[in-house]
Amino acid sequence: MNRKLRRRIEKIVGRDGCETAPEDLACYRYDAADEAAVPDMVVHPQGSDQVAALLELASEAGLAVVPRGAGTGLSGGSLALEGGLVLAFDRMNRILEIDTGDMLAVVEPGVVNRELRRAASASGLFYPPDPSSLNVCTLGGNVAENAGGPYGTKYGVTGDYVLGLEAFLAGGRRLETGGRNRRDVAGYDLTSLLVGSEGTLAVVTRITLKLLPAPRSRRTALFSFSDVRAAADAVSALPGSGVVPAAAELMDATCIDCVEKYRFGLLPAGAGAALLVEVDGDERSADSQLALVRELCREAGGNMFREAAGEDEAEAAWEARRAVSPALGRAAPDKIGEDVSVPPSQVASMVGEVREIAARHGLTIAVFGHAADGNLHPNILTDRRDPDLMRRTEAAVAELFAAAVEMGGTLSGEHGIGTTKARFLETALQDEALATMRAIKQSFDPEGILNPGKMFPSPLGA
Amino acid sequence: MNRKLRRRIEKIVGRDGCETAPEDLACYRYDAADEAAVPDMVVHPQGSDQVAALLELASEAGLAVVPRGAGTGLSGGSLALEGGLVLAFDRMNRILEIDTGDMLAVVEPGVVNRELRRAASASGLFYPPDPSSLNVCTLGGNVAENAGGPYGTKYGVTGDYVLGLEAFLAGGRRLETGGRNRRDVAGYDLTSLLVGSEGTLAVVTRITLKLLPAPRSRRTALFSFSDVRAAADAVSALPGSGVVPAAAELMDATCIDCVEKYRFGLLPAGAGAALLVEVDGDERSADSQLALVRELCREAGGNMFREAAGEDEAEAAWEARRAVSPALGRAAPDKIGEDVSVPPSQVASMVGEVREIAARHGLTIAVFGHAADGNLHPNILTDRRDPDLMRRTEAAVAELFAAAVEMGGTLSGEHGIGTTKARFLETALQDEALATMRAIKQSFDPEGILNPGKMFPSPLGA
Repeated sequence: MNRKLRRRIEKIVGRDGCETAPEDLACYRYDAADEAAVPDMVVHPQGSDQVAALLELASEAGLAVVPRGAGTGLSGGSLALEGGLVLAFDRMNRILEIDTGDMLAVVEPGVVNRELRRAASASGLFYPPDPSSLNVCTLGGNVAENAGGPYGTKYGVTGDYVLGLEAFLAGGRRLETGGRNRRDVAGYDLTSLLVGSEGTLAVVTRITLKLLPAPRSRRTALFSFSDVRAAADAVSALPGSGVVPAAAELMDATCIDCVEKYRFGLLPAGAGAALLVEVDGDERSADSQLALVRELCREAGGNMFREAAGEDEAEAAWEARRAVSPALGRAAPDKIGEDVSVPPSQVASMVGEVREIAARHGLTIAVFGHAADGNLHPNILTDRRDPDLMRRTEAAVAELFAAAVEMGGTLSGEHGIGTTKARFLETALQDEALATMRAIKQSFDPEGILNPGKMFPSPLGA
Repeated sequence: MNRKLRRRIEKIVGRDGCETAPEDLACYRYDAADEAAVPDMVVHPQGSDQVAALLELASEAGLAVVPRGAGTGLSGGSLALEGGLVLAFDRMNRILEIDTGDMLAVVEPGVVNRELRRAASASGLFYPPDPSSLNVCTLGGNVAENAGGPYGTKYGVTGDYVLGLEAFLAGGRRLETGGRNRRDVAGYDLTSLLVGSEGTLAVVTRITLKLLPAPRSRRTALFSFSDVRAAADAVSALPGSGVVPAAAELMDATCIDCVEKYRFGLLPAGAGAALLVEVDGDERSADSQLALVRELCREAGGNMFREAAGEDEAEAAWEARRAVSPALGRAAPDKIGEDVSVPPSQVASMVGEVREIAARHGLTIAVFGHAADGNLHPNILTDRRDPDLMRRTEAAVAELFAAAVEMGGTLSGEHGIGTTKARFLETALQDEALATMRAIKQSFDPEGILNPGKMFPSPLGA
């Protein structure tokens, strides 16, 4: 980057708002996906005006702009594949408002998910979307990827809570979508179009989020099964029972083993599978729902391993669930975490496919995920230094996607497409759908400034 | 329309699938909004292939295409403002599938909302969106307008249930969005972009809808209040109580009087306002929620008028609520029904504004709506034959919209913009949002074939 351009950027965000030293840029080389790219500069805007000015300058100079929250994304969405500016939102991290009357929050994109949960909870309210990285991930990133989480089973995902956005378009024009209304059909749903657009259409600077009254009571229990199919059968029986659990999280034997090595005693060691179920409502309703779930699990051959006696034990159960991904990360030099989503009735079949693919390629593939929603995370334990293992890993990834698409599923339930899945997008979408998405991208960002290289396969198919 | 073009259309849909006689076209001159326009031809396609062929031909011939369900829309969405073809979906009215395992339905657009509710219910499932015209309105129209209804308070609106769409773009290209997955973040959310787009972006031919397990128990009760503000206060206290009612429907004295003239004994005659509340869940939970609602109403000065003793009485209460709009229609030669949406805390203020506007212009304006969501339907009782009254009516409409926007609200919560509100859209949207919507329309339909004259104010502001 030339000195003149650098000076102009420093003028916008201040000298302490820019990083260009290689040792500083190196910190932004990665996100939680296993790829790497170094930006030309990292800037830390403070306020919408600075974001607008940066976008104006970026368009003028033809610089790529890559928004970044905590870098916990699992599809490479925050990597500066073509260099340019990373916009780090750590200085735009204020909860601007919690409105108990209208049950909403207004936040800057750098607010950590957990901070909003806490602030809402302090007002008797509840922000449901709970990606497993909630202790660190930011709401801006959650919006960009339309992040899900366990509570999605009953409560939906990030996009179901976004009432309105302030965002800046390529060139720095300010866009306001939605607002503070629960119902709003005035014009096209631009809010939903931006949610999950992975920073490729606009840079979000303010988010208005719907909140719910906190459930009066929760019951959290862990069930153990001899194998994953039995656990999947229990989950499949849920719709017929009338119970909509807040969450129904499946973990296979590999997940259980790895978590047990990481934090002993939390999961049913030696079991073929575990199911973490939470139900909520008023006290009696939560009791009766849990009783029904227990019965369904028993019928499928499972046993209750433990019911959380209170908030602390429930939190420990959730920490065990959230430890799955880091625990798998410690079990092998590298892991490739996938995010296939299939119609809920296909969960057992998809788990079977994962087993077959693992056997065929001599790989260990752990499976966990939001079973009641059909959103599974097959994680391949691998080693990037081993070319043969990586060839088998890559073949397995392609087969996982193909199997999911074959049974009516798709490539991503909650992590996004980013860079890691861009080359597979054509396999999951109808041609005209992909062409329509490209036309929308072209209409929003004709110069391709905003988060280039993400979501779309290269136009040449390379 | 020239004879050659007519022949080509007849070749696509068959002679019995076309109507061109003036007396037949007159039946399609109106929808439930009080405007009128005569199409050149009404066609009744059967199957996606016919829709594709019609769209191809329409683009070639420069004919406008206006999709139409039951014509119950309240914003003029199905009127052929520029003539052309009305695509009537009465021959595409099959429920193609109810899948209890994946809890979804696949339907053609001409299926009546009630038919899907019944089919879902027969399988122990529940399709929540319940526009008051549910006995006749079609799911295609519900998708086009993103229709809401009373249950939106707890369960959300049509768009919250659409998992996937088959649609045809201008020129006849087939577009598939979403699918059968509960979670899907592979690319932009085209499904949400099409929902509520009022037929201006594509013609929907198949809809995949999420279903829920039917609630085990419901309690429905009517409360009476001395005035609307007291009822609004009761509704405002709901969030703090932790109760999320399935529905909380407000009706003012004018609504009550008109319904009582229409079907005697259903509502609290002489009351200043009525609130129809439904809670659901398991039996004990529904009981305790209703007890809490009763307490909140009592604190706000209200009384329970009647609790429905069973399904039949609950249905009678709902029929009374659904009778509001037709009953108001009988109370004056004409009525103009509006659909403002405000942040929920502003309901009492908005009702106050309606009263002031009515008094200022010497008008009768009835108010009812989904109070807990801030979605109110002020209905002006008027007479199109009286120019002075119509001048005051039109001034009042503009003031209603201005008042809603002033308090952070918007023009439409569930009826859409259509033709009746197109000229006001600029007042509710930020300029850049409107420009972005226009760019999307331009990208999808550069020739302006699809439902012209809807949603957007004329480019020249005329």
